[in-house]
Amino acid sequence: MDYRRFFETAITRLQDERRYRVFAHLERCVECFPRALWHRDDGTTQDVTIWCSNDYLGMGQHPEVIAAMVDTAARVGAGSGGTRNISGTSHAIVELESELADLHGKEAALVFTSGWISNLAAISTIADLLPDCLILSDASNHNSMIEGVKRSRAERKIFRHNDLGHLEELLAAAGARPKLIVFESLYSMNGNIAPVAEIAALAERYGAMTYIDEVHAVGMYGARGGGVCEQAGVMDRIDVIEGTLAKGFGTLGGYIAGDRVIIDAIRSYAASFIFTTALPPAVAAAATAAVRLLKTRPDLRAAHQRATHITKHALGAAGLPVLENGSHIVPVMVREAELCKAASDMLLERHGIYIQPINYPTVARGTERLRITPTPCHTGEHIVTLVEAMVDVWNTLGIAFVEPPQHLHVDPESRERCTYPEIKLAAQ
Amino acid sequence: MDYRRFFETAITRLQDERRYRVFAHLERCVECFPRALWHRDDGTTQDVTIWCSNDYLGMGQHPEVIAAMVDTAARVGAGSGGTRNISGTSHAIVELESELADLHGKEAALVFTSGWISNLAAISTIADLLPDCLILSDASNHNSMIEGVKRSRAERKIFRHNDLGHLEELLAAAGARPKLIVFESLYSMNGNIAPVAEIAALAERYGAMTYIDEVHAVGMYGARGGGVCEQAGVMDRIDVIEGTLAKGFGTLGGYIAGDRVIIDAIRSYAASFIFTTALPPAVAAAATAAVRLLKTRPDLRAAHQRATHITKHALGAAGLPVLENGSHIVPVMVREAELCKAASDMLLERHGIYIQPINYPTVARGTERLRITPTPCHTGEHIVTLVEAMVDVWNTLGIAFVEPPQHLHVDPESRERCTYPEIKLAAQ
Ligand SMILES: Cc1ncc(COP(=O)(O)O)c(C=O)c1O
Ligand SMILES: Cc1ncc(COP(=O)(O)O)c(C=O)c1O
Repeated sequence: MDYRRFFETAITRLQDERRYRVFAHLERCVECFPRALWHRDDGTTQDVTIWCSNDYLGMGQHPEVIAAMVDTAARVGAGSGGTRNISGTSHAIVELESELADLHGKEAALVFTSGWISNLAAISTIADLLPDCLILSDASNHNSMIEGVKRSRAERKIFRHNDLGHLEELLAAAGARPKLIVFESLYSMNGNIAPVAEIAALAERYGAMTYIDEVHAVGMYGARGGGVCEQAGVMDRIDVIEGTLAKGFGTLGGYIAGDRVIIDAIRSYAASFIFTTALPPAVAAAATAAVRLLKTRPDLRAAHQRATHITKHALGAAGLPVLENGSHIVPVMVREAELCKAASDMLLERHGIYIQPINYPTVARGTERLRITPTPCHTGEHIVTLVEAMVDVWNTLGIAFVEPPQHLHVDPESRERCTYPEIKLAAQ
Repeated sequence: MDYRRFFETAITRLQDERRYRVFAHLERCVECFPRALWHRDDGTTQDVTIWCSNDYLGMGQHPEVIAAMVDTAARVGAGSGGTRNISGTSHAIVELESELADLHGKEAALVFTSGWISNLAAISTIADLLPDCLILSDASNHNSMIEGVKRSRAERKIFRHNDLGHLEELLAAAGARPKLIVFESLYSMNGNIAPVAEIAALAERYGAMTYIDEVHAVGMYGARGGGVCEQAGVMDRIDVIEGTLAKGFGTLGGYIAGDRVIIDAIRSYAASFIFTTALPPAVAAAATAAVRLLKTRPDLRAAHQRATHITKHALGAAGLPVLENGSHIVPVMVREAELCKAASDMLLERHGIYIQPINYPTVARGTERLRITPTPCHTGEHIVTLVEAMVDVWNTLGIAFVEPPQHLHVDPESRERCTYPEIKLAAQ
């Protein structure tokens, strides 16, 4: 049997639908973040500015975070040596879990090798330990949450994105059985923030358990970086808070935080936690450094919001179709897959700006976009260059503006005439 | 509703069945491997020898591997910055994938954040891309493979562990539809090695695709560390080879290697690959260093086998019930859960030897065991101490010996009278 042809057909299908992804081969560099080296297929390289990193605060490049990784690797080695049960419960991971429990004001935390696995493990295990559980899941939930929901044996119902009325309807209809509400605090493709206090109130009224994904908020929101729930003052009203160490905290891994007995049950029952090697101590130590650092750095969160605000304002003033939201995510709409890919390619090749296209299935067809994520390390100069480049690309490819661009021109002298404030956003 | 009680019940159930796991809190140390610091709950610490690490060759402690991690972290930072598509395709990961493809003589390789995820992603994606696929899965397959099999929509049949006759029966009965044989090369709890050449021959005869998990063999078997398939000369007759970077290679991560089009299809379709942050470049670089190093170090593989051989021989000579197998895994049978836990506790507390108990569900009830994994870093002195300690524990707890121990006594002078050769196994 010719098996190759099945895989060839699958690839061709993606190419025909313009969904085939080519990864940009990038080399980051500590001194020059958010700049990086792009390796072309022909072996040549080019200096580029990254405008779509999920290392939102540049923590992966922070000297204290790197020092923790380097010191720990030099002291205890490169790996953990086994699963958590076999020999992987390192001192570094125990420390990290206590730091995370403290961050969220919870009794306990449990670290996984990724946020993806933490959602798969925790959601499916919780739902399967609750007899006759009904899962109520937001329609825009991330793939990893959907996988967790699907892996469980529990019945599930989907509520319309951030729709409190619909959620309440489903809660009321469910009656007295155990119910688990599964949602995100900050939806990363739109930048929408969930009404967390209202959802907590509904959960209390109808006796439901709550599970929130704060992956795109931890480190970045709340007085100590505890996320949207900390900012809204509802951390203690949410049962399980899930987060990642790979975005705001700049390293790798995922986690959950909650009551000791809930965390212990997930630790004890989740196959995807039990049967896999633990995070290396060096990675755990780096994450701990980032979490600790951000507990005391509201100034970095402010710089992040300021960079976001200025970027949104500057793009909007140039007539680019920025999607409104209350977060640090800056989606600029293209609304057509091939055009979106072409815009991304042109930004990279002509302007040395890296923003990968977001197409189906990550977002719905017709809502294709460039998703921009300013960091505190992007300067006013970077922002001005970005806006000019995008206006050029929009003009060249004939993508729709909201209104004709007014202040910006494409010629190289335009920078001098630009009126955006030159902001100084220090990385530290 | 009182949700806590559901979790409390779940924990109590484990405690009642003597399956509740307590993780030993350990701190490894580069200079002293395989020794480590054990942190007791009361805050005191004790120096212990680890005898159950899955860092089988001590690569996580190797200076070249650590140097690669440290240098890369210092140069490019602590994290990757995003999913592979967003900004996570680092130079280090591209290099690692090409090193792994070369290791297995395949066109391409794809790296995941764990072996667990690589099995989930690859098996489910392959099976779902083959129309009307039938999966034939070995009865002893690892949890991660079972999860991959279950996640797919394909029909599945289980063949008895390493049973060629049963496998052939199922292949013959399946007829002309696409078939995927899923198995391991080395089963880690028994140490059994699969008849890989015979399975490859059956696959060819009946037109099936083959997927092998070499997690417990890569780095340790074959002329360049390509695993059991390299040793048996059948790498080119197996379609997809899966491995981990976290055991023989001492770091973190998993991978698959195979034809370019197959790897590309998994890269393009597997949600558990697409929607998660990539491995940090520093971890990828450390893994690359380990893979490269082991390609040229048959002496380390020989030292590993020698340590295993001497350990098995010494334990067997002392009358301890070692399970026979042809691999580097040394299972010593206890056959009772509580006794197994007690033996492990006594080894740790009385003798400073860390070997965690392997109980249900990792192994079948009645086959509980201590699973010993000698490394090239364990010296003859370590082995002698281990045997003495185990004899003491077996005597104290009244666990069954194969035959009465003859040469060893428990008194502290016994070491001098011991006849095991003092071996010198250098770490490098
Ligand atoms: C909402 C959400 N949850 C979970 C994850 C997975 O986290 P990680 O990258 O740590 O696997 C992501 C993206 O990566 C995400 O966007
Ligand atoms: C056979 C087998 N496959 C896969 C895995 C998972 O590998 P990893 O630890 O890299 O997740 C393990 C154990 O951890 C295993 O024993």
